[in-house]
Amino acid sequence: MIQTIFNHRSVRKYKTDPIPEDILKQVLAAGTRASTTGNMQVYSIVITKDKDLKKQLWEAHFRQDMVLQAPVVLTFCADFNRFTKWCEWRKANPGYRNFLSFFTAAIDALLAAQNVALAAEGHGLGICYLGTTTYMAEKIVDVLKLPELVVPVTTLVVGYPDEDPPLTDRLPLEGVIHQETYRDYIREDIDRIYAEKEALEETRELLKINNKETLAQIFTDNRYTKKDNVFFSKEFLKVVEKQGFRKDE
Amino acid sequence: MIQTIFNHRSVRKYKTDPIPEDILKQVLAAGTRASTTGNMQVYSIVITKDKDLKKQLWEAHFRQDMVLQAPVVLTFCADFNRFTKWCEWRKANPGYRNFLSFFTAAIDALLAAQNVALAAEGHGLGICYLGTTTYMAEKIVDVLKLPELVVPVTTLVVGYPDEDPPLTDRLPLEGVIHQETYRDYIREDIDRIYAEKEALEETRELLKINNKETLAQIFTDNRYTKKDNVFFSKEFLKVVEKQGFRKDE
Repeated sequence: MIQTIFNHRSVRKYKTDPIPEDILKQVLAAGTRASTTGNMQVYSIVITKDKDLKKQLWEAHFRQDMVLQAPVVLTFCADFNRFTKWCEWRKANPGYRNFLSFFTAAIDALLAAQNVALAAEGHGLGICYLGTTTYMAEKIVDVLKLPELVVPVTTLVVGYPDEDPPLTDRLPLEGVIHQETYRDYIREDIDRIYAEKEALEETRELLKINNKETLAQIFTDNRYTKKDNVFFSKEFLKVVEKQGFRKDE
Repeated sequence: MIQTIFNHRSVRKYKTDPIPEDILKQVLAAGTRASTTGNMQVYSIVITKDKDLKKQLWEAHFRQDMVLQAPVVLTFCADFNRFTKWCEWRKANPGYRNFLSFFTAAIDALLAAQNVALAAEGHGLGICYLGTTTYMAEKIVDVLKLPELVVPVTTLVVGYPDEDPPLTDRLPLEGVIHQETYRDYIREDIDRIYAEKEALEETRELLKINNKETLAQIFTDNRYTKKDNVFFSKEFLKVVEKQGFRKDE
């Protein structure tokens, strides 16, 4: 268990070998054992293997080639559709068309996703999360034909690794934990916490290639810009609303 | 790995025995190995052990006694404060005061939480997620002194179990997965998927105690009512806004 967790790397190159059905089934079943709000299981997992559909998902996910390479693409969705239908067909009056219910369902979907990721890695499979899911949720809703009260929140590509990447650096543990209450960071804390990351050979190369003075600038100017974030915020909120999760409010 | 996942139960009664520091540290370090958006690690974990603070958290979490019993309460927060400060002190112009960034940070926090949950269980500890975190986020912000750009998204209580609960039922796997694209549910699907849950002895007892005709009614009328959901939606969105996550939009 612990070993699998500490060995995690995101895999971005895959062999085309399919995943045996019994293994895929066990990996997905592992997802269902995650904690879920009130045992409602308000999530769904869409398993996409079809080449043409994967190509459409590849378009949505900023054309990252691993979406085409990996044999299986799993889209994890916040899903109050199934539960709401159950309520309606059981003489109950569901009230889940609101932001809290969307967020609750997103939590369920994300905990299930992490179980699936670890179970896959426990079987020697590789995985990578696609953060583009929330950016391009509208397109994914279309491709996967997601009905009202279903919103994609994350995606895993899964397959046998065709690369063996090194462990990625992390901030020192003290950088992300707080004892008793939150202790806000002063400049010295930030300097200390980010020192190792900033001193990496990889960072030096990035600065040279991107012609930047600091690593932070690569994030703010190239990777996660304010302009993109503001644009995709509007897009994502539009999808949450369009899928019916604000109707009760 | 797989075994730990399939053995998960939520534990609601705890021994007061403390968790040895080296074990707690390894469990938290396991959290940091989870995938994180662009390796930004935009989350924080607040570790609360102090009796008085736990009592305040217990008030927030609808007075669930496990918050007092368990030696450790871990509050997982979406956190763009640390990253934003880093940017500001590195001549970079951060743009993370928006909904997408909040949601991105929430994903990071939740994947880390599930790693922590599984690592804890791998060490023989018990855990329980507290869904009340989003309901009572404002109070938790106060108790834990969370600054701007930090919002609590889930909580784990952790400790040595003082009960050995049975596995909880789950819907059959086919009930939560979809092949290739989403296939919406017709009445027969819902009947089949919920048949086992509805036939449980536990369900029959619940119906008797609550004097209800269907299990779904217990969810809609007692546990997760429309009135509460709509109220707590507004509260939670207010906190997201108050913590500065809508300023750029």
